[in-house]
Amino acid sequence: MGAFALRATIVQAPEPGRFETVPDAVITVEDGWIAAIEAGGGGEVDVTIGAVDGVGSGAVLVPGLVDLHVHAPQFPQLGTGLDLPLERWLFDYTFPLEARFADTAWAIRVWDSLVPALLANGTTTAVYYGTTHVDATTALADACRRHGQRAWVGRVGMDHPEQTPEWYRDATAVDGVAASAASIASIRLLDPVGDLVRPIVTPRFVPACTDELLTGLGELAADTGALVQTHCSESDWEHGHVIDRCGVHDANALDGFGLLAPGTVLAHSVHLDDADRALLVDRGAGVAHCPLSNAYFGNGVFPLRRALEAGVKVGLGTDIAGGPSASLLENAAATVTSSRMLRDGVDIDVSAGERPRPDAAVDAATALWLATLGGAEVLGEPIGLLEPGRRFDAVALRTDRFGTWPEVD
Amino acid sequence: MGAFALRATIVQAPEPGRFETVPDAVITVEDGWIAAIEAGGGGEVDVTIGAVDGVGSGAVLVPGLVDLHVHAPQFPQLGTGLDLPLERWLFDYTFPLEARFADTAWAIRVWDSLVPALLANGTTTAVYYGTTHVDATTALADACRRHGQRAWVGRVGMDHPEQTPEWYRDATAVDGVAASAASIASIRLLDPVGDLVRPIVTPRFVPACTDELLTGLGELAADTGALVQTHCSESDWEHGHVIDRCGVHDANALDGFGLLAPGTVLAHSVHLDDADRALLVDRGAGVAHCPLSNAYFGNGVFPLRRALEAGVKVGLGTDIAGGPSASLLENAAATVTSSRMLRDGVDIDVSAGERPRPDAAVDAATALWLATLGGAEVLGEPIGLLEPGRRFDAVALRTDRFGTWPEVD
Repeated sequence: MGAFALRATIVQAPEPGRFETVPDAVITVEDGWIAAIEAGGGGEVDVTIGAVDGVGSGAVLVPGLVDLHVHAPQFPQLGTGLDLPLERWLFDYTFPLEARFADTAWAIRVWDSLVPALLANGTTTAVYYGTTHVDATTALADACRRHGQRAWVGRVGMDHPEQTPEWYRDATAVDGVAASAASIASIRLLDPVGDLVRPIVTPRFVPACTDELLTGLGELAADTGALVQTHCSESDWEHGHVIDRCGVHDANALDGFGLLAPGTVLAHSVHLDDADRALLVDRGAGVAHCPLSNAYFGNGVFPLRRALEAGVKVGLGTDIAGGPSASLLENAAATVTSSRMLRDGVDIDVSAGERPRPDAAVDAATALWLATLGGAEVLGEPIGLLEPGRRFDAVALRTDRFGTWPEVD
Repeated sequence: MGAFALRATIVQAPEPGRFETVPDAVITVEDGWIAAIEAGGGGEVDVTIGAVDGVGSGAVLVPGLVDLHVHAPQFPQLGTGLDLPLERWLFDYTFPLEARFADTAWAIRVWDSLVPALLANGTTTAVYYGTTHVDATTALADACRRHGQRAWVGRVGMDHPEQTPEWYRDATAVDGVAASAASIASIRLLDPVGDLVRPIVTPRFVPACTDELLTGLGELAADTGALVQTHCSESDWEHGHVIDRCGVHDANALDGFGLLAPGTVLAHSVHLDDADRALLVDRGAGVAHCPLSNAYFGNGVFPLRRALEAGVKVGLGTDIAGGPSASLLENAAATVTSSRMLRDGVDIDVSAGERPRPDAAVDAATALWLATLGGAEVLGEPIGLLEPGRRFDAVALRTDRFGTWPEVD
């Protein structure tokens, strides 16, 4: 890759609640890593972003967006079929669609549409659920490699005879663990150094997996050093189902199966309590907050401020296609609006004095932090902020599409 | 304009909750009006939309979107400054920005950015607040005419010595009524037939106006036959302020000033009660529901289903810049998500059994209806649906940007 220098105005969020602007920064990049950043730097550069005579007149550079939760095979149903509760939505819409990915050619067609769509939305890093199929999942990792997107890609393990259909599940827990091991090996062959594409152990969620599969996948993660992703306390139904089956909250159950570790990505986690949050902090596991999806399936707003104040690592996810948008920025906006709605309440028949939760609201700077550095810290990856020692992973964001107003403060 | 024919697949919502698709329709247009529509029609056409060899491969035709509530001068602060409650937001950010439109050249620069931005978002009809300035407001109407956007454009009347700043208000109620009368005359000169651009009487909202100005503007609307727009029961503060000052709810107060009539557009109306809804129905006034803005300033979700079931006319508004988006489709999506959040509640500390309001949710077909025909019916304008006898007012919506999946049901 060699070395190059570029000039751009950086806008980023080094911590929740704080924007940082670095005007006319000269960024020196060596072998993909940021070697130096000089604000207002002079000298020759190879490319200028945001200048009238450069690339993207009226653009700023922001860290690449990190989407922590994408169900890749659900892209064809994006924005549709959101009328059912989670447990029926899976059987009526989602499992039949995912089962089609036994056809690897169909899979590649979808991946070659999805990955560029996410890149066009600014998502330079994604954490993907594939399907139960090893070949389709490897093809997804290959699509990320070809299109240049940083990715964790997981073959989905699911074998529970009551919570999954006979025509779309691992035949046995042993088969499921073996298929996930094969998927890990296959993805690692694509990118032996793991610079861009890595496997991730992916039990769908507790309801869809037997104890044996969950235990086996926990062991597989420990044996291979791969990260783990799954869902946690997503909805009233899912949260209650795990309590009924395991006698403990979802987070505790996952911990018992060896699935909570540094870098574990827990989607949603809407219904955590204080003990759950403390457990996540202790294990170093993080949350993929998916605000648009939660409006459909979560039965409540994830108490984001409470999680951040407890020290839980949090980033954002689109949850394609439980969420109707492929844009992480739209989810960042929805993070702010849903936090405001949690603060003020939604029901005007409840008197104003009873509604407000004054501490719930977060601002746009926090949302950008979640979409970049917050997600990076969940994964333990040196991205999410433009500073020396991190990878050069950034997107140019146009700010001039319909006029800029420099005279407005 | 003459006659022409085009072929397109129509997708529209003739009533809440129902999509209608007309495949391969041949639409005959005469002098801007739809003369005939034939599904699967044969014969020669002048243009084909959505065909591989036509305009917009993979596009469908939908009725033009109707944005019932746009504060045109706030476009330069779109998406910023949403950290304060309404009553402080106005003084700290909004009134200083609007005051700048005394400079008509600056105004034209903003209008020539705003109007194309809304058109690019599919908004073919908009109901605008201008500023207190006659010239800038006339220039907005002229920008709509030049760019080809159907519009109602209102000079803002505001004269209350406590709720508006000395440097941005009508000097007296008499001056305010005179300026609004001049604005109406001036806009009517631009488009004497009123085919595209019309004036609208615009008292800012009750708190910003003296009784004398509100009464005078009610009389002006009656005398000129112009429609009326204002805000109604937007937030806890605004709703309570009118009760304190007038002793009745906002809707009653506006009615007493002669401002509720067929075609009156009442922005927000979050905090209406049953009697308010009945009054709106009786007077033929409608609501501009602005779900994204309400998340910031409304202190609750507008009970949309309740309004529709009471027979209140409802359409959608972006409320630029109280809402952070110029896209009415994004507001249509937010209509669905906020209705789901009203249904399920937002606070997980309230037990699941106490949270749900099962009747609150609306679907995507209802949201499209609101964005098109619902808005048209608020205004009494023959748009919002593609059928003979209405104006040909439509947008082509691309469906193929990142792949279409005809095999998915």
